[in-house]
Amino acid sequence: MTSHQLNETDAETGSWFPVPADEEVPDGLRKLFAKARERIGFVPNVFRVYAFRPERLSAWFAHYRQLHEPTDGLDAADREMIAVVVSSANGCLYCLVAHGAALRTELGDPVLGERISYDWRRAGLDDRRTAICTYAEKLTLAPREVTRDDLQSLLDVGLTLEEAWDVAEIAAMYNLTNRMAMATNMLPNDEYSAQARPDGGGGELSGEA
Amino acid sequence: MTSHQLNETDAETGSWFPVPADEEVPDGLRKLFAKARERIGFVPNVFRVYAFRPERLSAWFAHYRQLHEPTDGLDAADREMIAVVVSSANGCLYCLVAHGAALRTELGDPVLGERISYDWRRAGLDDRRTAICTYAEKLTLAPREVTRDDLQSLLDVGLTLEEAWDVAEIAAMYNLTNRMAMATNMLPNDEYSAQARPDGGGGELSGEA
Amino acid sequence: MTSHQLNETDAETGSWFPVPADEEVPDGLRKLFAKARERIGFVPNVFRVYAFRPERLSAWFAHYRQLHEPTDGLDAADREMIAVVVSSANGCLYCLVAHGAALRTELGDPVLGERISYDWRRAGLDDRRTAICTYAEKLTLAPREVTRDDLQSLLDVGLTLEEAWDVAEIAAMYNLTNRMAMATNMLPNDEYSAQARPDGGGGELSGEA
Amino acid sequence: MTSHQLNETDAETGSWFPVPADEEVPDGLRKLFAKARERIGFVPNVFRVYAFRPERLSAWFAHYRQLHEPTDGLDAADREMIAVVVSSANGCLYCLVAHGAALRTELGDPVLGERISYDWRRAGLDDRRTAICTYAEKLTLAPREVTRDDLQSLLDVGLTLEEAWDVAEIAAMYNLTNRMAMATNMLPNDEYSAQARPDGGGGELSGEA
Amino acid sequence: MTSHQLNETDAETGSWFPVPADEEVPDGLRKLFAKARERIGFVPNVFRVYAFRPERLSAWFAHYRQLHEPTDGLDAADREMIAVVVSSANGCLYCLVAHGAALRTELGDPVLGERISYDWRRAGLDDRRTAICTYAEKLTLAPREVTRDDLQSLLDVGLTLEEAWDVAEIAAMYNLTNRMAMATNMLPNDEYSAQARPDGGGGELSGEA
Amino acid sequence: MTSHQLNETDAETGSWFPVPADEEVPDGLRKLFAKARERIGFVPNVFRVYAFRPERLSAWFAHYRQLHEPTDGLDAADREMIAVVVSSANGCLYCLVAHGAALRTELGDPVLGERISYDWRRAGLDDRRTAICTYAEKLTLAPREVTRDDLQSLLDVGLTLEEAWDVAEIAAMYNLTNRMAMATNMLPNDEYSAQARPDGGGGELSGEA
Repeated sequence: MTSHQLNETDAETGSWFPVPADEEVPDGLRKLFAKARERIGFVPNVFRVYAFRPERLSAWFAHYRQLHEPTDGLDAADREMIAVVVSSANGCLYCLVAHGAALRTELGDPVLGERISYDWRRAGLDDRRTAICTYAEKLTLAPREVTRDDLQSLLDVGLTLEEAWDVAEIAAMYNLTNRMAMATNMLPNDEYSAQARPDGGGGELSGEA
Repeated sequence: MTSHQLNETDAETGSWFPVPADEEVPDGLRKLFAKARERIGFVPNVFRVYAFRPERLSAWFAHYRQLHEPTDGLDAADREMIAVVVSSANGCLYCLVAHGAALRTELGDPVLGERISYDWRRAGLDDRRTAICTYAEKLTLAPREVTRDDLQSLLDVGLTLEEAWDVAEIAAMYNLTNRMAMATNMLPNDEYSAQARPDGGGGELSGEA
Repeated sequence: MTSHQLNETDAETGSWFPVPADEEVPDGLRKLFAKARERIGFVPNVFRVYAFRPERLSAWFAHYRQLHEPTDGLDAADREMIAVVVSSANGCLYCLVAHGAALRTELGDPVLGERISYDWRRAGLDDRRTAICTYAEKLTLAPREVTRDDLQSLLDVGLTLEEAWDVAEIAAMYNLTNRMAMATNMLPNDEYSAQARPDGGGGELSGEA
Repeated sequence: MTSHQLNETDAETGSWFPVPADEEVPDGLRKLFAKARERIGFVPNVFRVYAFRPERLSAWFAHYRQLHEPTDGLDAADREMIAVVVSSANGCLYCLVAHGAALRTELGDPVLGERISYDWRRAGLDDRRTAICTYAEKLTLAPREVTRDDLQSLLDVGLTLEEAWDVAEIAAMYNLTNRMAMATNMLPNDEYSAQARPDGGGGELSGEA
Repeated sequence: MTSHQLNETDAETGSWFPVPADEEVPDGLRKLFAKARERIGFVPNVFRVYAFRPERLSAWFAHYRQLHEPTDGLDAADREMIAVVVSSANGCLYCLVAHGAALRTELGDPVLGERISYDWRRAGLDDRRTAICTYAEKLTLAPREVTRDDLQSLLDVGLTLEEAWDVAEIAAMYNLTNRMAMATNMLPNDEYSAQARPDGGGGELSGEA
Repeated sequence: MTSHQLNETDAETGSWFPVPADEEVPDGLRKLFAKARERIGFVPNVFRVYAFRPERLSAWFAHYRQLHEPTDGLDAADREMIAVVVSSANGCLYCLVAHGAALRTELGDPVLGERISYDWRRAGLDDRRTAICTYAEKLTLAPREVTRDDLQSLLDVGLTLEEAWDVAEIAAMYNLTNRMAMATNMLPNDEYSAQARPDGGGGELSGEA
């Protein structure tokens, strides 16, 4: 038996798997790519890399996108916050950069978004968000120890049962997504680094401490 | 603000969330339930519990079922083995009992299946399965440390690139599924405990050591 | 100096050490073996493997057997439960299979026994058994952090001082036994897998999830 | 005995300790503050917070500043990289934001600098920087296991003995500094978030994944 | 049900359990106590504390004492070294003080004995002792990961199969003993601190660093 | 490029770096060495080893010595206790031996000092010292989780704000110092082992358990 060998790492996306050219991608996904280009100006590398298995990408994305639908008690920023807290606990570069950018945008607060990506505990979050982050981190790092009381703590800060379920399902989903990103070696598109930063930065010397 | 309170834990499934009665379940899922009853004689509790959010169940299951499609180099037993190894690393009761039963069945070896569920390292697996379990456990417990060499190790034991991807995606998926099971407190149906056991056991005294 | 080399792994017991034939075993142990055969139909592999050092086996077993003597407040099932909880925390294949079988038998509840072996926290145990499992797991995983209050928690659920001591000593003993099993690579006898399983299983298809 | 009570958390710096007003700060430090204002436009919060104990700040800073003196084989960017890798291993918000900005500046590469702050392993570093990061992370997380071979690995990528010492001393220093930042609850100045970001970002929508 | 309450902690031994007076101790143990007094001038607290359950003490000690019988390739100092390495990994105060004293004595080297008790890796041990300590620590901290190669590493430094078994069984035994010491809160007799120290110390000022 | 090679390990100090001879040491440090010889009879190895980088030694020592200045509520023994607790959590041989000796001396209680070096939790400390040790250990092992309440717990046992800061800064400093000791492989001077031991030990047989 001659074993298969990995190709060179894909220069653009970082992937250790073959990355299909645009014209090789099935129609359904090509529409998804086009829509992304239209909305944000580029195709996120998660799409390009996952397109090695197009049906899987479609199935994953159909599930994933449901979880980012905002509700009254768990808005778009809250949902990105959960993504970032889980990705920080797992140490996922792709998701921290891509969803870090999304979090800064949705919060409309680039400083707060960056803080959450490094340490949500010291980001000055209110009780509601603290309860959500606490739950998401625990489900990520010590799922066996999650209790009924942990679930009740989400209701106690005003979430509905459905929203509490969403906190759990978003956290669970990023435990899948983080691992796909790290297993394939996805790198975040450079564009994310520039998104939703404070004005007036760009290029001066950094501080001494 | 009056916060919501959890109901009593559902006696049959263990769920901390409301469990819809059969007649409340949407048509699509009712067919899924019926098919399960036909094939295995009961509705797995994961279906009943996840049906609190029917569209989520449909989306998750559409993704999940793709991952259990056997291929030449990664058969049904191998795929259940990955499920069990990940569930053991995460300590997920529901998945260890339900997929432990599936693994015993697919292997056609109740002793080996049980051993894998407790410690795959001492189950006497061959090099191919050892490489698969090693990868799945590492992606579960230390995803940040997974390298290109880890991926190549799957190709080295004869997997195709697609099958190596499947090992990663199944492992990633059970990191989602385990967390949903633990977040909702799903309990495995009693029926699993009886499936695919060796003959001639049933009820005698246990050994002294 | 020419260093010693390990023999082939013993096919029947898994041992990395030489396993004495029945006729090489000293008289005292031969009686022990015979008694086991009579009671349960086979000689547990722990006896065969440990018989490489017959005086050690005798000394260990003389201590060990005292710890499984039931008392009013800590019956045979409770003692097997401690064995299983410690073995689960340490991940000991031999003891999980062998004492898992004993636990199912003593409980007279194959489903509950299996659940405890995978995750005692979700097995639906009452307060008394929860306190016992909590203590045994903590003494196993974080012995330095065990406090006087932890000990009092055993008295608070009705145990006598002697029974609280027994919880500690059984847990301590399985920390020895698990390590002997893993250091020698003991494999559980196949017979355990069949013991005390629910009726009506055996061989059908597994569930889909 | 009446115990002391903490003041309100300082709004500007986050400190749990009293933060001296500018005019209360001793002369020597006032010069340091002025110099910072001149060079980077603001006084880093580490100075304001540490000024509660002015002689300590002077002593710490006199040691600390020596460690950032660049050499031929370990330049300013390399030294900031060590700061960021240690701060990431310890999860220190203040240092990740402040030295993350410095690292982006010194590298002249905002994307690479951000990547290192989230996961240096996937940042595409060359062998020399990989060896340095590996050593700094190990000395942070498992100092007892650091060996002579680990030290030799720094010389093997071209560092002098003095530069290898510097890698260790910088890593050790940030293990002090990170803990002072977290013990006092220092928050990074908002200005850091804007420094050395890529052009053309600012405010658009984030990507969908 | 009125639950039992712990007595005051025993002033002399630290025990959280009742400590029998000398005259309450059964004959067999009284001889053991007398022999200890004769040989070392005092009764080790492990005997006093464990005497709450006299038959257990007898059984444990009958097993334990076998393991300290020296052999050509694993002498008394080596066996105490294993005790100390395991006790250090578990953080057991009683055993570190009591067996630390025994190790200093058996080695005839108070400095080396003290070093091993704090960090065997930096104590300058030869290859044989390094292999033994490596094995004992791994069996203590990561028993599931112990392999056949780990066992062979003991034979490779000249141990017989029986001595390699002894390394494992001594390590396993101290995993029991450490937990009994911590579960009962045994404190070491003061006398141990004075045993086998270097000459010429006693009472001067300590160093500045 | 020919890479540098480490010299032989320095026999006297253990250092993996070159250790300057006394006459190579700059004047300022030579005075420090002379003063140490006068006060305690020898030059601590930390001075000899750190003298490879004389300006660093001066800067480190200027900071370090401030932290051991006793105050009313945090005396010399308390400060050595923090050094020992941090060094125990990090497992630093050099600091455990050297500051273990200092702690025995400052406490005037060789038994208590030794106990703290192995397990401060079972050393019978009062509430004030327990709070200090708890804080120092947490800042060492889980700095990200240190909260405002942890800081208040130091004030609650009577420390001033300045003394609470000192607890944090001493703990932070030993996280630097421990890592320098382990990165350079400093070995403690033999003299420490003899300091401040109880009378009447020296050389007799150790106990049997």
